[in-house]
Parts: sequence; structure tokens; C-alpha cells
Amino acid sequence: MSNNIFAIILAGGSGSRLWPLSRELHPKQLMQFTDDYTLFQSAFIRLVNNVDDKNIITATNAKHDSQVRYQLEALQKKFFRQSSYRVITEPLVKNTAPAVALGIKYIEKINKCEDEPIIIVTPSDHFIPEPEKFAKIVEQALKLAQENYIVTFGVKPSKPDTGYGYIRAKKNKKLRDISEKALKVDFFSEKPDEESVREYCESGKYYWNSGIFVFKASVMLAELKKYAPEIYDIIHNAEITSQIPTIPYLEYDKMPDISLDYAVMEYSKKLAMLPMDCEWHDLGSWEAIYDISEKDENGNSVQGNVIDLDSKDSMIYSTSKLVTTIGLKDMVVVETEDAFLVCEKSRAQDVKKVFNLLKEKNDSTHLVHKTVYRPWGYYTVLTEGDGFLTKCIQVNPGGKLSLQLHHHRSEHWVVLEGNALVIHNDEEHYMSPGDSIDIGIEETHSLQNPYDEPIKILEVQRGEILDENDIVRLKDIYGRV
Amino acid sequence: MSNNIFAIILAGGSGSRLWPLSRELHPKQLMQFTDDYTLFQSAFIRLVNNVDDKNIITATNAKHDSQVRYQLEALQKKFFRQSSYRVITEPLVKNTAPAVALGIKYIEKINKCEDEPIIIVTPSDHFIPEPEKFAKIVEQALKLAQENYIVTFGVKPSKPDTGYGYIRAKKNKKLRDISEKALKVDFFSEKPDEESVREYCESGKYYWNSGIFVFKASVMLAELKKYAPEIYDIIHNAEITSQIPTIPYLEYDKMPDISLDYAVMEYSKKLAMLPMDCEWHDLGSWEAIYDISEKDENGNSVQGNVIDLDSKDSMIYSTSKLVTTIGLKDMVVVETEDAFLVCEKSRAQDVKKVFNLLKEKNDSTHLVHKTVYRPWGYYTVLTEGDGFLTKCIQVNPGGKLSLQLHHHRSEHWVVLEGNALVIHNDEEHYMSPGDSIDIGIEETHSLQNPYDEPIKILEVQRGEILDENDIVRLKDIYGRV
Repeated sequence: MSNNIFAIILAGGSGSRLWPLSRELHPKQLMQFTDDYTLFQSAFIRLVNNVDDKNIITATNAKHDSQVRYQLEALQKKFFRQSSYRVITEPLVKNTAPAVALGIKYIEKINKCEDEPIIIVTPSDHFIPEPEKFAKIVEQALKLAQENYIVTFGVKPSKPDTGYGYIRAKKNKKLRDISEKALKVDFFSEKPDEESVREYCESGKYYWNSGIFVFKASVMLAELKKYAPEIYDIIHNAEITSQIPTIPYLEYDKMPDISLDYAVMEYSKKLAMLPMDCEWHDLGSWEAIYDISEKDENGNSVQGNVIDLDSKDSMIYSTSKLVTTIGLKDMVVVETEDAFLVCEKSRAQDVKKVFNLLKEKNDSTHLVHKTVYRPWGYYTVLTEGDGFLTKCIQVNPGGKLSLQLHHHRSEHWVVLEGNALVIHNDEEHYMSPGDSIDIGIEETHSLQNPYDEPIKILEVQRGEILDENDIVRLKDIYGRV
Repeated sequence: MSNNIFAIILAGGSGSRLWPLSRELHPKQLMQFTDDYTLFQSAFIRLVNNVDDKNIITATNAKHDSQVRYQLEALQKKFFRQSSYRVITEPLVKNTAPAVALGIKYIEKINKCEDEPIIIVTPSDHFIPEPEKFAKIVEQALKLAQENYIVTFGVKPSKPDTGYGYIRAKKNKKLRDISEKALKVDFFSEKPDEESVREYCESGKYYWNSGIFVFKASVMLAELKKYAPEIYDIIHNAEITSQIPTIPYLEYDKMPDISLDYAVMEYSKKLAMLPMDCEWHDLGSWEAIYDISEKDENGNSVQGNVIDLDSKDSMIYSTSKLVTTIGLKDMVVVETEDAFLVCEKSRAQDVKKVFNLLKEKNDSTHLVHKTVYRPWGYYTVLTEGDGFLTKCIQVNPGGKLSLQLHHHRSEHWVVLEGNALVIHNDEEHYMSPGDSIDIGIEETHSLQNPYDEPIKILEVQRGEILDENDIVRLKDIYGRV
């Protein structure tokens, strides 16, 4: 592996079309679907075939930063020699063009090789069951990028779908001399309208754009300068160093909210395409999840606590409660702790509409699950009412909640399982199941698990204002002070 | 109103076809659907048009006894002069023939009138939106019963349905002289097979049996003696008095598990029929509930926290969490705290199969809700785990949990809302929101609400055995010691 090969994994999406399983703060790329790894982790593992792991950069945003780091740490322990991973954090969510521009600039700063960087950009929500085949295609793409092409990966459309960009490409001797299957792109249309899509698919001459790109840093920067100068200028002038892998909020906020496809790909004359000669799935909707799932003899994909009578070709997914279904056909049913979805499978794209509706209504079910993951474990809201809120808190072995205080609420903790260390007003309390403690407003406290078994704590919050933001962190091992 | 007119409301069913809203311990007749009253309460109120309220007897079983009494008490305060209501309690669940026989015998004991009792028997799960019209039909039925007829109420079938008994009846001068619209029943078939049902409905000559009957006590007893002697004999020899409105478990257990329709109606030569000339609904399935519900312009009946896109002719019912539906057609979706049903509307009868499956599997979701109603209020199980269980307990104003102790568990209470009186080891504690108390194994305790606002308590149970049956009641205002 050459040291000038880098990768940027784009891991900042919100996964609105896989709601209610996916939430803005727990999006699909950070979830497990098919094996022991999350989609994001799988994307990372896949890249290691072509890129040195220390050269793989994850681009995420402030909202997903701690979960991304947590998942990278889990990988690191299992796989890699490196003692650290590289994450660039967008201060707010923009589209892919700003994120990629930021990534290129950062890679230029950390590149220690004499050759200039060649970069693979990949989304984090693809499912590619044969990573070795994929690695061979990437190998060819790297050769093309070396010759100053921007390489795209084309997928033969399985149906007319307005959710993709469409590529038309043709044979070209110069390209074929570099890589046998390479084609020259002569038309790139990002998400065309329904009529065009139908026409493209009928002609049989078009490919979907998979969203994976390979290019030389200087080539892409030149294209950005040409076609998206407002992005180029900000990135060019930003003070990005190998130590500061981000950019000030106010600078980043000036960036247009645009994808790399709209900003560059639709205009660039340097595009080459390699056909994606391996199984590939964009897990962009529940229908796509259904497609890759194992099915029973009635064509149903069933997961969790489900009783079904006579359903066919449906996806029934329960995360907690009993779901019973009778006589469904081509449906998607998804149950989570706080929201249920029942949807015609062919309408799966419209889940995004529900997500946006909830967001507009400021309904938190678009944003978080009742169970919220934290670096130290997770908590679940059990019940809330006038002036109170109760949670069940799990602290993993070694986990420590920050030393904190609240201005507006008191807390009462009861240990349910395991043994806890509670720091309360500088005093240490070792607590066992059944023990309880009162923590008043403004009193400093921390809940810690110094042992090997997880602990469960019941928390009763009381106060006029009960808000996750009412936390003053005084000390935190996860750097959240 | 003559003092010899009595009624028996059959309120012991389990309502399996309205699962998951209806549970064995919280069946449909005890639930509210259309107005401020439960179906059972509405049945009671309806009868008051024809029967003195003290002559209305509710037949239920041990499982539903306390809820039935609670609902009668609620009515009593609002409506009636009586200081007590009458409930007969089957020691175990049998079908309607034993329950009616027990009721007749009890009525004979309490009848203080010289005329012998005439009895109206009615299920408790009907919806009759025009009770005045119904009362006029009952008035006619009473006249027929006086002349020794057993009167049934026939409903014109709206579709072939194997869930009903079918009646064929014809004009008869003798009957017409008593009541103008009365017909003589010449054929009664309880739940015939599909083919017969189709034939009956096509002929246009048949009626559904509504399940409401009116008869003279002596007439029905004579028919029972003739056609169901095994029931008659047990009831005849049982020691039933006005003070003891039940029958020993072992006696009742000998009764055959048979409905009055199969035991008597299919054989009796004394049947008259009055057409049910008013709107009538047997709320026997989700489809029936849909039929009587208010619908929006798309034909959807929507209740609770629901977001829908483009569904049609569907019932979407949420009791707690967010339910989102996209593109449904003729579906039933029902959400409860612990179970979720998605069903083709035309398959609504098969919900009973799911209920029975759950019962076989001993899954408690057939039996109780996560929220369980008690005479003093209700509780909801929040979370359970290894050696612990947490509940949120609401005690209504004036409510008192029994003075009790547990052999296998300790409890920890935290007041969330309202002010509570806790009796603990003979000591009184007045507790406010935020206060907590530990109750050890074998320690006597009672939770009481002496104030006008409901209270909410969080309970943490801990122990090797956490079972609702581990309650030793020492004192109880609801007679459960």
C-alpha cells in the first residue's frame, strides 16, 4: 500500500428514510444490520484492503462525533496497530461538497509522502457483501486517479429510481489502456426527474452513480476552484493543521449546502467510470433493507418478538414489544420503544416525509430514541409527568458519568443491578442493589462503574425544568467539559 | 315498572377478538369506546328504561368482579337511588347457560313480588345508539314473556357471518295478537357452517340472533330441566340465598361449558322473535369497532398519537406511542403499551387466534395490560430485570392499598406527584414529592391517598421472587383480605 493513498468516509448523514429505527442522533450508518459491525465500521474495514488504516479519515459532525469515535475505538482494539484514528468534525451539518473539501485540505496537511495524495471518498451506508471484489475495482480506480481522472463507480439500475444520479459512459482507448473496463463519462445528471429516469432506464445505457469517488487531491481542488469557488475559497483560506482537524463554525456556516455531485460531478470533464462489478446495496430505505434480509418461505423478513398469521413478502421488525400481524402483503412494520411505522413497502421512500414532518413539529421522535447512547453506556426514559422524569441508566464496566451538577433539578438514585461508586459532594459512596441516595440541586455528583459487570440505576429527576441541557460538567473522561 | 321485572347482564367475557386493547383481565365490555361510559355501564343504563335499577343483576366471574363493582359504583353515584347493586359471581368462567341458570335461581330468591319474575338477559358488549327505541321493543318482549314465550331479538344480517346464530321466523296470529310485530320462531341454528350461512343470507328469510332474551323464570327453568338437566339439577340443589349470590367452586365446575343458545334455544318450541327495529352493533371485532367509529374524509378512523400519509378505509388506534402509517388500505392498526396489532380488516376475526396462541404460550400479553387497574387506581410496570421490577403506581383520591406484607421482596417507594400517607410497621408517614422510604421483607405497609389529588409513586421491588401473588393482605377496604 502506498502511503499517499487516503480515504474519507462520509459518516454525517441522518438516515431519515430508515426512521423509526434510525434517528438523527443515531443514524443508520451507526447501526448494525447484517453482521457484527455497523455499516460505518464495515465501510472502514472494507477500505483497509486498499488504504493503510491510519490514512482513513472519518468525516462526521459534532452530533455524531462521540458515537463515531466509540465505534472506531471498538474496531481499533480488534483490528489495527494504530493507537489513534482520525476524525474530522464538521461544526454543523452541510452536504458532501464542503465535507470532502475539508477532508482534502486536512489530508494535504497530514500527508508525509512525497507523492501527492490520492483519495477515496465513500459514503458509510453501503452494503457490499464481497469486499475483496470491491477492493479490486478500487485498485483500478487508483490507477485512473493517478492519471488525473476523477473516478466514479457505476451501478446497473435495477429499477427506475429518482433517488440516484445517472451516468452515461462510453468506451475510450486512452482510458482502456490504463484500466481495461474503464469508460469515459460523457453525461452525469444528479437525481433527474421521473420522466428522464424512465427514459434512461429503458435505454439501458445509463448507470447509477454509487457515490464513491477516487481522485488526486490537486485534481479535485482544481475542479472545486473552477465549479464551486465559494467552497474552494473558504477551504483555501481556512487554518487547518494536522492538529486542528476542523474549521470554525462561522467559516463553515458560509459554505453552500451542496453535494459533491451537484457542485462538481455534473460539470467536470475529467470523469471516468468503472462498472461496479460486485453486489452493492445502498441501504437507503426499508425496502432496501428488506431486499438484503433473509426471508422465510412466505417471503417475510421477521425480526424480534413477532407473531404472524399468513403474511407475505413483508418486513416485520420489532425491537422491544410484541408485534402481531395478520394477512399483510408487501408491507413494512417497524416497532421501536417510542414509535411505530406501518407502511406499504413500495412507499418506503416516503418515510423521509414523516421524518421531516416530525422535525417540523419539533417532535423528539425524529431526533433520539427513548434509549440514548452515551460513551459510558445508555439511558432510557421510563416515565415523565408534572415536575418529574424517571430514567433507567446503564453504566458499562469502566464507565464514568461526568462529575456534574444541575441548576434546576434534584435527583434520587436507586441501584437496581451491579455495584456503583457514587461521588457526592466530594464523598465516595459504594452502593449495592437496593441502596438509594438523594442528590440536591447544585450538588456535585458522578456515577461510576469501577467493576466488571454493568450497573443499572433508577433515576428520579424532580424540578421545574427537566432538560438534558441542564448539566454543568466539571470533569469528564470523555472530554465533554 | 313492575317489581317482578328483572335483568341479568352477562359481563364475564374475555373479549379476545379485540386484543390487544381488550385483555382477559380488562375485557372489552369494561372499556369505553363511544361515549363516557363503558359498554357494560351503557348496558346497565339502557336497562333502566325497563327495569328498576335494584332489579338489575350483573353476572360476572371472580376475575372481573372488582372492576365490575368499581364501574357499578361509578354509576350509582351518578344515577341511582340504590345504596347497593347486585352482582353474582361465577367462581370460574363457564359459558352463558350456567350463568343464566344461576341468575334465575338467585332472582327467584330475591323476588319480593307476588308475580313470578320475568327476566331480560343481555350481553354487555352491544352498542345500541338509540336506547329509547330499544326500550320499546323490550316492552313488547315483556308482554310476550308474560304469555310464556321465550323472546329473542332478531337482526337483519348485513353480511354472511358465521359468528352468529340464525333464526327463521314466520307470522302467527296468536303472537300477533299479543304484539304486532312478533313472529314465531320455527328454526334456530347456533353458528351454522359457512355454506349454510351463505344460503340463509341469500334467502333473505333469516335473522341473526342478537343474544338478548326475555322469559319468565319458570318457563326457562322448565326448558333447562328438559334440555339441559345436568345444569338444572346442580342449580336446583345448590344452596343459593339472597345473601350468597354465588355457588361453590366444585359445584359450578361440574357444569357443562355450554351457551344458552346451544343448550336451550336450538331445541325449545317456545321461541318468539321480535325484529330489532333499531340500530344495533355487536362490537365483536375490530371491523365492528371501525364500522361504528367516526371517519375522516379518507374513510379512516384515527385515534391517539397518529401521523398518516395517504391511507384509506383503515382503523388506526394508538393508546400511547407515536404510530405512523403510509399508504394503508383496509387495515387495522392497534397500538398498546406492550403489544401492537397490524391486521387486514377483513381478517379481524382471526385476532382471536392470536389471543389463543398467546394464551397457549403463557404470554401474559393476552391476560393483562402493562397497566393493571385496581379498585384504588392502577399501576404500570416500567422495567424489569434480574432481581428487580419497577412500577409507577397511581392512587386515586380516597384510595387505599391494603395493609400488606411480602415474604419475598423488599420495596422502595419514591413519591413523584401528590401527597401520600404511608403506614409502615404501624407508623404513619406523610410523604411529599421527592420523599422516599424503604420497606423490608415481612414488614407491614399500606399506601393511602387521603387527599383530593391523585398521587403517583415510583416503586422499586427487589427480591428473588417478584410475583403479584406474594401479597399477604391484613386489612383491605375493598374486601380482598
